[in-house]
Formats: sequence, structure tokens, C-alpha cells
Amino acid sequence: MSENQNPVIETFAADWRTFETTHRIRTYKVLSDSLETTWDDERISNYHFLWLRDNCPCSQCVHPRTREQLFEVLDAPANLSAQRISLDKEGKLIVGWSDGHNSQYEAGWLRSHAYDPASRSERAERLRSVEPWGSELVIPSFDYSEVVSSDSVLLDWLLAARDVGLTMLTGVPSANEAVETAAKRISFMRETNFGSIFEVKTKAETTDSNAYTSLELPAHTDMSTRELQPGLQFLHCLINDAAGGESTFVDGFAIAAALQAEAPEDFRVLCEHPIDFWNKAPQSDYRSHAPIIGLDARGELSEIRLTNWLRAPINLPSSEMGAFYRAYQHFSALTRDSRFLVSHRLEAGQMWCFDNRRIMHGRKAFDPTSGQRFLRGGYMDRDELLSRIRVLERSHVRSTPMAAS
Amino acid sequence: MSENQNPVIETFAADWRTFETTHRIRTYKVLSDSLETTWDDERISNYHFLWLRDNCPCSQCVHPRTREQLFEVLDAPANLSAQRISLDKEGKLIVGWSDGHNSQYEAGWLRSHAYDPASRSERAERLRSVEPWGSELVIPSFDYSEVVSSDSVLLDWLLAARDVGLTMLTGVPSANEAVETAAKRISFMRETNFGSIFEVKTKAETTDSNAYTSLELPAHTDMSTRELQPGLQFLHCLINDAAGGESTFVDGFAIAAALQAEAPEDFRVLCEHPIDFWNKAPQSDYRSHAPIIGLDARGELSEIRLTNWLRAPINLPSSEMGAFYRAYQHFSALTRDSRFLVSHRLEAGQMWCFDNRRIMHGRKAFDPTSGQRFLRGGYMDRDELLSRIRVLERSHVRSTPMAAS
Repeated sequence: MSENQNPVIETFAADWRTFETTHRIRTYKVLSDSLETTWDDERISNYHFLWLRDNCPCSQCVHPRTREQLFEVLDAPANLSAQRISLDKEGKLIVGWSDGHNSQYEAGWLRSHAYDPASRSERAERLRSVEPWGSELVIPSFDYSEVVSSDSVLLDWLLAARDVGLTMLTGVPSANEAVETAAKRISFMRETNFGSIFEVKTKAETTDSNAYTSLELPAHTDMSTRELQPGLQFLHCLINDAAGGESTFVDGFAIAAALQAEAPEDFRVLCEHPIDFWNKAPQSDYRSHAPIIGLDARGELSEIRLTNWLRAPINLPSSEMGAFYRAYQHFSALTRDSRFLVSHRLEAGQMWCFDNRRIMHGRKAFDPTSGQRFLRGGYMDRDELLSRIRVLERSHVRSTPMAAS
Repeated sequence: MSENQNPVIETFAADWRTFETTHRIRTYKVLSDSLETTWDDERISNYHFLWLRDNCPCSQCVHPRTREQLFEVLDAPANLSAQRISLDKEGKLIVGWSDGHNSQYEAGWLRSHAYDPASRSERAERLRSVEPWGSELVIPSFDYSEVVSSDSVLLDWLLAARDVGLTMLTGVPSANEAVETAAKRISFMRETNFGSIFEVKTKAETTDSNAYTSLELPAHTDMSTRELQPGLQFLHCLINDAAGGESTFVDGFAIAAALQAEAPEDFRVLCEHPIDFWNKAPQSDYRSHAPIIGLDARGELSEIRLTNWLRAPINLPSSEMGAFYRAYQHFSALTRDSRFLVSHRLEAGQMWCFDNRRIMHGRKAFDPTSGQRFLRGGYMDRDELLSRIRVLERSHVRSTPMAAS
């Protein structure tokens, strides 16, 4: 047997998930550089030869323990073609390649990864989970000790953080490690130049940030000067005896959608013109260059980036400057509009957890002479949140067949 | 004096940098919504009224300690205009606004932040620092103890990491904390699901990653499954007594440029078609969606994202699949091309530090039965590197006037 003539192995090994056979291939047709399959619900899926070869799950092509690919598609012959094709009793597609290699694909896996228009739009639809909100929002709240002890409450909390973007934990002990304990239920935290944990107390001589004054802070995202703004922000109140200091929130995605509806040109300007954010501090000089409204590769809202006091002087062609300020003022006005505003004075024993790249947060001024105020906070990236949700869903919420997304 | 009628204050407070007066404004002209200045070298710069008002550095508009803005440009009157304009003896521009507010701007600051075409292109040029390389590269090397003790050697090392992208430290003690000590000269490190520090030893039963086997690893970037791939990778060799295991490097930006020259259509495909990367592990499920060749908002090469064994099945319309595989195979072939390849067997006492988003690294297979092999590694984001360079340049390399960039 030559190097390429692997035995057809039994175990599907290219993923840690499993894929149920919801549909079977009824017929297939060999085209010039691809295979066209017709499923039992009449869906037609085309599979390019190189795509199929690239995804061969045999133990020569995929490391059986790490389940990571060993084969490189560059090593496929230029004129690769499928020569012997069959379907087995279980509906598996079996392919003998022109270079002697053999591959087999489970029907459930093929269906889940098909790239015909219907399959692609099903998957895109499954990724849409944002629930925009305005002032009517009832903030999703979860009991701290249940989040710590129950994986299903944990999952509910994380789905709310992902989809609503603003959540509260209640019954949080007034202990320094509460942020870390809650965060560790998800993953590790993201360190910044303020440390792994930042403490919000009024610092009389601060040069670090307006956040450490007692001033009102308008709606903003944190760390807008970083290439990647942190995804989640945790903010735990240990003491709040000072008058004032209410937390304020608006859904930046709801505001962006309203802007798009009211003034598409202003929306376009804020999507297409990257601006600069600079922190201004003696010991650091962070700078980012990105638009205020960020769209992802799919054209969906991906993030808001806006901290008024960290904007650098706008650096756009003269002909765009008027349009930029018009759009910027329009967006800023919406962040003050009461139809979007949710406000709550965080009390000792409560913790915010919100999507820092979507939910703009602010604070009313407080009177530092009227009492103590002590918050502890930290960050985590969206990657950790989403990975944790997927792993929890693998083991806990498997009522529907798993599909690639 | 009304709320808006601030005294004209002396101290320029909106930045921690200073701006020398290299040019003076000779004349100015008031237009309908902007001021047009002519500098003593005939450069003409236009300053929109809202832009000027937005950048007022007085102590009402900018917090004098944090140097962060307090004023919000949304609060400027819609019909704001400059009414009283003058230049003082030092060349400062003094503006009295229609609402009674007064602002003054240093000539050096105005010139540094001007947004006429010449000023914009000067600044864009100053940001271009990438030095592409091929197999002829002499790897920039720095002595570990000098990096630890001297800020100017530190700066040289960091500029090489930024511009060349691949550097080596020599004379590194075989102590566990050497990576952390070197990294702390820059900033904090970036934690991942592999911890703050990862150890590369052969693990017989690994399910985590092909990196923990003794297999050859083709050229790749690390953490391609994350929304933001780590910018810098540190890799310290404490023991290398095993046969084989040479480190290999190619400059992904040089390869992307070669691809663009040889086959613009392949380059376009890899820039414009985001693909998916999934890690495959029992305890995590990270997924990213991004193109293999990433361009920044300026259209400049920003990153390469490619780990062959972490690519998810390609999810593109059928009509694009052939073009994608053609481009992918072309790019992959260039990563194996000897004209780009630099190879070096890392010995005990040496440490790599390279730009993980530009330099693709690999490893030859090694024989785990022939001797021990022990590397410690970690990551840091580009933000921390660039911030540290800027702060060092503020205090150490001030031979030329500081300009905004």
C-alpha cells in the first residue's frame, strides 16, 4: 500500500462535536471539479474536490488525539479528481481519489458544513442573536451564588450577556475576590495597563483617567484606545454611601440602528471613517484607529467605539470634516436620548456584567464628601465568553442537532 | 463672566507631549464654516470651526490633571462661528467664539495636527516602518542583560521587533522567569487559555495542540482562532538536546507582497474572503472569522492569519471555491519557498521575540527520544509594544520635533 493508500478508517476525528444524520444524500453527480449531491429534502449541495480532500477526516490527514489537520491541501495533486464514489448503508459518502487516497464523510457532517445558498443562510441566521433594547429594558438579573454553583444558570447568564449585552448579578458578597470568582466561571480575565482588576475610588491627584474623578461621565466604551476593546466589563460595588453616581447605560447597537434609519448618511460616515483614539498619560501612549461604528466581515454591527475624552484630533480630509461632525453630533445626541436610557444606582452586593463593545456606559457625578464609594472591575474578551457558551451548550443544551456555525 | 466666558489660560494641557514651533502662521482668512491659515512655508491648512472648538485646550474643556476632554462638542451651538481672531507674539492662534468662549492654540500643535493633504500624507508616511525581508535576513540580535539594564538598547530591540518583526535575545539565563523579565521591560503579557506562560515539551497524550507533539509544524501564526491574534510571541529555549527541531520563519508581509505582484487576483481573494478558524479541544471552542491577509483601515498590510490545522471547512459560495483554493495553494507554496525562509536551531540561552501577526513560524520535526527539549513562551499585544516605544521615544529619542502620528 503506497503512502496515499490509507485504509478507510471508522472514526470521524476532525471535530470534538458530533453531527446527527438529519438528512441523507439521495443521489450524486460528478462534475468537472466537484461533486453535486441531492439530499432527501431536494436540497442540492456542491462539494469542490479540493474542499472534500481538504476535509478528509482519516487518521493520516487529522491527528487522532489533537483532532487537528496534518494534511496540507497544497500537497494534493493539481489534477485531483474523485474516481470511486459510493454511499454506504449509514449514508456515508465514500470517495476514492485519483492519487489512491480514500476518504469518507458522515452525512450529518457534510450537511452541517454544506455551502449551498440555503445552508449558508441557515448558518448565518443562527449567528444572529443580538436583542436590541431601549429604556423599557428589564435588566436580566442572576443570583451570584446560583451562577457559581449551577452550570445551567451560568449558561443563562452568559446568553443574556451575549444577546442583551447588559446583566446584573445580585447577592454578591462584599469580598474583594467576587469579580474574579464570577469571571472564573467563564474563563481567565484580560489584563490592561490598569491591572487585572481596577479599583474605582476617587483619587485626588489622578493623572490616569477621568474615571478616577467624581465627575459625570457621558456614555462611552472603555479602552477605546486599544486595537481590541475588551468584550465584557465586570463592575462590582462593595460600598456606595456617596450621594449620586448612578450607572447609566444605552445599547449602542440600538442607537446605531436608529441612526441608520433616521440618517443613513450619518451612519455611513461613522462606519467608513476611522478616527483616532489616544490615551493621554505619563506612562503609556496607546493609540487606535478605527471607526465609531464597527461592522464585521458579514456587514453586521460588531462594535461601538466611542470615548469622547479619548478622541484624538480628527484627521480626515477637509471635505469630510463637516459631515463627520454632523454625524458625530447626531450619534452623541442619541446617546443622551431618554428613549434609549437605562439607569440604576449600583448598590453594595450588586455587580454589572456588560458587553463593553456594544453597551455604552456612563455615570452621574457623585459627591465624594458625602460618603465612601468603592467599585472593583475587570475585563474579559468576547472570545472567552463565546467559547465558554459553546462548550456549555455541547454538554448541557443538546436538544437540537449540533450544526456548524 | 458667563459660564462660557473662560479666561484665556496659558498652559496647553491637552497632551503629555510638547510641540515645538517649527512654522508660524503668516495669514489667515475666515471662511463660512472654517478658518484657512497660510503658514510661513506657503502650506495652506483649513481648520473647521467645530474641529477648533472640539480641540480647545483650556482648563474648562480639558481636565488639567488627566488632560482628558471634559467638553462635548455636541454642546457647541449649531451656528458656532469664530468672531475675534488674532495671533499673539509667540504665534499662538487666539479665537473668540460666537457664544463667548475663548480658545488659544499653539502654532506647533496646530501644525502637527493639520489635516490638509500635505500634512496628512506626512503623517501617514511616518507610520510606515515595515522592513520586509527574505532568506538574506541577518536576524537582529540583542544581549539580554543589556536589554534589561539599558533603555536605549531596549528601544533598539523594540524598534527591530516592530519593523523587522523577528528578533533574538542572546545570553539569556536558563531560568524560568527570563521570559517574564524580558516582557516586563515592555509591559504586561497577554494571557490565553494556555496560561500566561506556555511550556513546549512533548506531551504523549496531548489533546491540546499539534504544537505539543514532536511533529514538523508548517509556517503558521499562533492563536488564529482569536479575534485578535497576539502581536508578539516570546519563545525562550532552556534545554535543546533533542535532534532536529529547527525554528523556521518567513515574513508573511513579504510573501503577501510577492503574491500581490505575481497574482493580484489571488491576493485579492485572500484579502476579501474571510474564512473561519476553529480550535478543536475538549474544554474550549474558539472561533474567528477573518481573511488570511488583513489590511488596516489605511489599506496597508496589517496581519497574516493562517494556521493550516485550525482552518474550519471553507464556507464560501460555490462560485468562489475554486478561486479560493487556487489562492490558498499559491500562498501556501510561497511559505515553503526557500527565497523567503530563515531557519535557526534555537539553543539554550536564546530567546525569540517576533511579530506573531506578520512573521509565520514553524518547526522541523524532532526526535523526542534523542534528548530533552524545553521551551517557555508567552504573548503580548502590539498595543503594549507600540505604547512602550512611544513613551521611550518621548524621553530618549527627541532629536526631531514630536509630531502627531
